[in-house]
Amino acid sequence: MLYVVGIGPGGLDMMTYQARAAIEEADVIVGYKTYTHLVKALVGDKPVLKTGMCKEIERCQAALEMAQSGKTVALISSGDSGIYGMAGLILEMVTKHSWHVEVKVIPGMTASIAAGSVLGAPLMHDFCHISLSDLLTPWEVIEKRIIVAAEADFVTCFYNPRSRGREGHLKQAFELMSPYKDPQTPVGIVKEAGRRKEAKWITTFGDMDFELVDMRTLVIVGNQSTYVEQGLMVTPRGYQL
Amino acid sequence: MLYVVGIGPGGLDMMTYQARAAIEEADVIVGYKTYTHLVKALVGDKPVLKTGMCKEIERCQAALEMAQSGKTVALISSGDSGIYGMAGLILEMVTKHSWHVEVKVIPGMTASIAAGSVLGAPLMHDFCHISLSDLLTPWEVIEKRIIVAAEADFVTCFYNPRSRGREGHLKQAFELMSPYKDPQTPVGIVKEAGRRKEAKWITTFGDMDFELVDMRTLVIVGNQSTYVEQGLMVTPRGYQL
Repeated sequence: MLYVVGIGPGGLDMMTYQARAAIEEADVIVGYKTYTHLVKALVGDKPVLKTGMCKEIERCQAALEMAQSGKTVALISSGDSGIYGMAGLILEMVTKHSWHVEVKVIPGMTASIAAGSVLGAPLMHDFCHISLSDLLTPWEVIEKRIIVAAEADFVTCFYNPRSRGREGHLKQAFELMSPYKDPQTPVGIVKEAGRRKEAKWITTFGDMDFELVDMRTLVIVGNQSTYVEQGLMVTPRGYQL
Repeated sequence: MLYVVGIGPGGLDMMTYQARAAIEEADVIVGYKTYTHLVKALVGDKPVLKTGMCKEIERCQAALEMAQSGKTVALISSGDSGIYGMAGLILEMVTKHSWHVEVKVIPGMTASIAAGSVLGAPLMHDFCHISLSDLLTPWEVIEKRIIVAAEADFVTCFYNPRSRGREGHLKQAFELMSPYKDPQTPVGIVKEAGRRKEAKWITTFGDMDFELVDMRTLVIVGNQSTYVEQGLMVTPRGYQL
């Protein structure tokens, strides 16, 4: 049995009961080293296979091999395992090659939800997720999505907003959105949401400081109705108050 | 203290530890009656204020009054409290009127994530949430979002897809998307995700059966790369396998 476990943003209190149970039931834990560290308290003295960044295929291969040999494996993924996480790759491998492994996807809380709760309630109206990583997606596809999201006034959550080798992507994204965005539109920035080092900033589209952002940061750009009051970023649903 | 608690899709095993702790700590529970029922096991003999559908403002008012009078209140919201949930309305009321209440938003797992895990891994690439309820949003705004989401090839999750008084909205949404969608595009339908009566169907854009859908259903329309194999709906991230 292979559990692909979304552990949530990091803190154990944002993990679900189902995720915790899967980790406790597993014979062996597999994951990227930062994430295996986050669940250390649950793992006890079980064997843990840690792999480095960008080793996703090797990690999945190892998890599938151990599960096929009869072990119960928990492959852990931060946030939700099904959103830019390990569930997709595992199911691709299982559906395209002949593995004989039972897979159960265990969902978790994705970063946008955790970040939203830290900022107030910015995701109360239609929103989208866009990853700014062009390692696996052509930049033109990403550009198109950024533009239409702004044009149709979606609240927009940027995943993987900035990292070495693509320092300029978030700034480019803001330039693409700028014809449709009032400079006063609120922007929320949350670093390490739900973890010990959590930090947040609320600014505006026009005053955005790209230097605050790194790979562990989520950026939420509001819609036309989003406002900030008492330090809270709120997107109204439309009730008449 | 007022906790606005996202209880997840329904089953206790998809609830977070933080949500459970807030319900256990509260003196009184407030919520829509279906949702208070879902957490009955945690509530014990605490007082529960249940309100009916479309009574959101009254429900929030009651929760704020009790919190202001010194009680610890858990206002429960299904899924994530910050996604079409109660957090937005509470924070609007707190920021626009002079309540003296400390509010803590407790996030939860939203329906799209739970439904995604039931179907496979359909949300592995950029996606958006669109609510088809035009009670609080002009239909023209919703239409625009539907069209651009299809045009820019977002995976699209439809919330509130169909209910009395708007039986035709989902069909209209599909008509608006059809110039951009291959009829073979996979569509996942999940009713009551994460609850005892959970049911799912995987079909195609061209063969969609709108009669399967009601208000407790989430509909996920895939992107150009989404495929179905072994009964699993998978949107590839883009790895070369």
